[in-house]
Amino acid sequence: MQDSTEIEYSITDGIATIVLDRPDRMNAFTGRMCDELVAACDAIDADDAVRALVVTGRGRAFCAGADLGEGGSTFDDRGRDPAQTKAARYGEVDGVGRDRGGVVALRFAALQVPVIGAINGAAVGVGATMTLPMDVRLAGASARFGFVFARRGIVPEAASSWFLPRVVGISRAMEWAMTGRVFGAQEALDGGLVSRVVGDDELLDTAYGLAREVAENTSAVSVAVTRHMMWSMLSAASPWEAHALDSRAIVELGRDADAAEGVTAFLEKRPPRFPLRRTRDHTDLVPEWPRRP
Amino acid sequence: MQDSTEIEYSITDGIATIVLDRPDRMNAFTGRMCDELVAACDAIDADDAVRALVVTGRGRAFCAGADLGEGGSTFDDRGRDPAQTKAARYGEVDGVGRDRGGVVALRFAALQVPVIGAINGAAVGVGATMTLPMDVRLAGASARFGFVFARRGIVPEAASSWFLPRVVGISRAMEWAMTGRVFGAQEALDGGLVSRVVGDDELLDTAYGLAREVAENTSAVSVAVTRHMMWSMLSAASPWEAHALDSRAIVELGRDADAAEGVTAFLEKRPPRFPLRRTRDHTDLVPEWPRRP
Amino acid sequence: MQDSTEIEYSITDGIATIVLDRPDRMNAFTGRMCDELVAACDAIDADDAVRALVVTGRGRAFCAGADLGEGGSTFDDRGRDPAQTKAARYGEVDGVGRDRGGVVALRFAALQVPVIGAINGAAVGVGATMTLPMDVRLAGASARFGFVFARRGIVPEAASSWFLPRVVGISRAMEWAMTGRVFGAQEALDGGLVSRVVGDDELLDTAYGLAREVAENTSAVSVAVTRHMMWSMLSAASPWEAHALDSRAIVELGRDADAAEGVTAFLEKRPPRFPLRRTRDHTDLVPEWPRRP
Repeated sequence: MQDSTEIEYSITDGIATIVLDRPDRMNAFTGRMCDELVAACDAIDADDAVRALVVTGRGRAFCAGADLGEGGSTFDDRGRDPAQTKAARYGEVDGVGRDRGGVVALRFAALQVPVIGAINGAAVGVGATMTLPMDVRLAGASARFGFVFARRGIVPEAASSWFLPRVVGISRAMEWAMTGRVFGAQEALDGGLVSRVVGDDELLDTAYGLAREVAENTSAVSVAVTRHMMWSMLSAASPWEAHALDSRAIVELGRDADAAEGVTAFLEKRPPRFPLRRTRDHTDLVPEWPRRP
Repeated sequence: MQDSTEIEYSITDGIATIVLDRPDRMNAFTGRMCDELVAACDAIDADDAVRALVVTGRGRAFCAGADLGEGGSTFDDRGRDPAQTKAARYGEVDGVGRDRGGVVALRFAALQVPVIGAINGAAVGVGATMTLPMDVRLAGASARFGFVFARRGIVPEAASSWFLPRVVGISRAMEWAMTGRVFGAQEALDGGLVSRVVGDDELLDTAYGLAREVAENTSAVSVAVTRHMMWSMLSAASPWEAHALDSRAIVELGRDADAAEGVTAFLEKRPPRFPLRRTRDHTDLVPEWPRRP
Repeated sequence: MQDSTEIEYSITDGIATIVLDRPDRMNAFTGRMCDELVAACDAIDADDAVRALVVTGRGRAFCAGADLGEGGSTFDDRGRDPAQTKAARYGEVDGVGRDRGGVVALRFAALQVPVIGAINGAAVGVGATMTLPMDVRLAGASARFGFVFARRGIVPEAASSWFLPRVVGISRAMEWAMTGRVFGAQEALDGGLVSRVVGDDELLDTAYGLAREVAENTSAVSVAVTRHMMWSMLSAASPWEAHALDSRAIVELGRDADAAEGVTAFLEKRPPRFPLRRTRDHTDLVPEWPRRP
């Protein structure tokens, strides 16, 4: 991937890390950060060595939201450089340029590896909504969260009106969105936004521990297909869609080498060595979410 | 709005209150109460001065359910005054008169302002199901709840087979509906039906505190559009519906005066003064839930 | 029903019990067990005497998952006896034989009586996923759970990519599926997979207590229709589908004998004696989930 300047992307022991990396701006979100996050996701999907992704922020914030450097005209897209408009960069949906938070959120949702958010400080606005398609969110004690859109005169973006009620339930989603309040790690835990709160010093270790639990025990193909099944079935019209999909998946994967190795290793009480590769095998089983016409 | 006799409707400091007001009948639900609740909601949507709605009950009950004054024929609609049938009052759906609990529930769900239920006592039958499209439910210590329909030989109404599993999850919804048990505030809290239990004396103060948090900090237009987005996206076929909707909403609201004021006030560390009005601006952005053909 | 050898099916005081009954194999799931579970569900639906179903396991396990007696080829369906293939036994969906876990899960979901899972030990793989369409899951202190599919090189089945996120939320579902970890009763309780953890000695008493709460207080027709409404509305396109359905249900049931008895018994403060029968009355009100074309 291209050099990145607003995120840091690295891989260690099969686990990728993205660090949001504008600490002097509390890692505020920009068009360039959007581009770099998408490029990093593309790099992960193309690399069989990566088994999980951890996302965190440099310094005391996770991501303080959209960069408000343009003041009152921050959310006014008129008069921008035509080459940098959302439509020019990411295309349109229903005739308007795609919201960049949604570009990132839907890219995270489509990733082939699990995503673990390690929320180390303020996650506000798009800094909060971009974490919703992550599979697990862990909070350091200093984390705080805010769906502050109604305080800025806009509305929740990044497809969060779809994601947030599915993650925390409609009542909690509405309470946070209608007040726009900023709240701490404990309220996030009580409301189901994060699965654990740990000391700030333990945050990354906890995230990597979970990532290693995936990497050391599971088939990369199984995890990739499972991830796409789970997220896409959130909007299935009936459980028969899941039944059709997993009937096919069990036949296809059941005949292949990872299933043989998985069962054999279990019976032999030894760690599995799965031969399949998610860049090549079976990860086309689950159709993408339909885009609107 | 017309004079009401079964509810009391008032507005103070931008916060509307509906008191279910038949204390001698434990605020039991009637066709007239249905009419008055709908009229109050229409009045709220037409009045920019209202920023939130609190719903509570007079006396020791919130609402004890359908008025059973007609005994065993309570739920038998035959032989009623033709002008007062459900079909005559609210039209039909799929060829039958619309259930009045559902008329109220869907009206609350479509409201432009957040709804806070302050459950002060028994909320049973339609008294429980009418609260499900409210954004937040708070319980006084004396509150109790019951989805008692199976004990009366009928079934959950007010579209609660759609709302209840989305609010509390399918397992809790089924346990409450299949037993028909009446349960207290703590079980409601444990099951996610209410977000907080407070002393009976603090109930209204807590509700108004939450309503003021909305009124003092947020754009009325932002909250109205957000509310419609969140509730309608519960039944979206894919997150791309949300992505399309909020891409458009961010463009439209981002160019308008509330976004400029919201960001400017935040940067100037002062309370915002949002100029837009929800009766006029942007609240047609989110399509209504499709009615069945 | 036919003699069963891999489950034990019995009825006492209106409550059916299915015991998974291969204790020497930790009640591992087989094609025959699938057949017997479906036959037991058919028997229950045909018998008005049954008001609820309790499912548990013989010995120290609930169900340890698919029987791995064929080792590495366990999930490879090629070369099986043609008369015993999944397609031959249960038909196809989208051109492949139906996954047997899904056959059982969808049969439980369609049952006319509530299902209470009494999880007495290991519930792993299909032993875990078959419990998801049950209405209530209770865990004994010795229970443990695992969605271990990714460790075996396959993917979650039994339509669990649809059921699990609706029961426990997408974040918990993904954490359990992506790690494949085996976890205890407390983690299951914290994650909302079970509603209660009780001592192993109290497990069946607790389950039967809940079943009796249904049997002694409610209309069998009301419970059957409610169960179908709740589960089917999980995938409704809008609450108007629920509004249409319960408007009709309230008219039909409201005119019938259980509604008259339910209200009369309540007003007379005596136990109800409901005359309707679910094998005959009203249980065709709710359409089945649409199968895929």
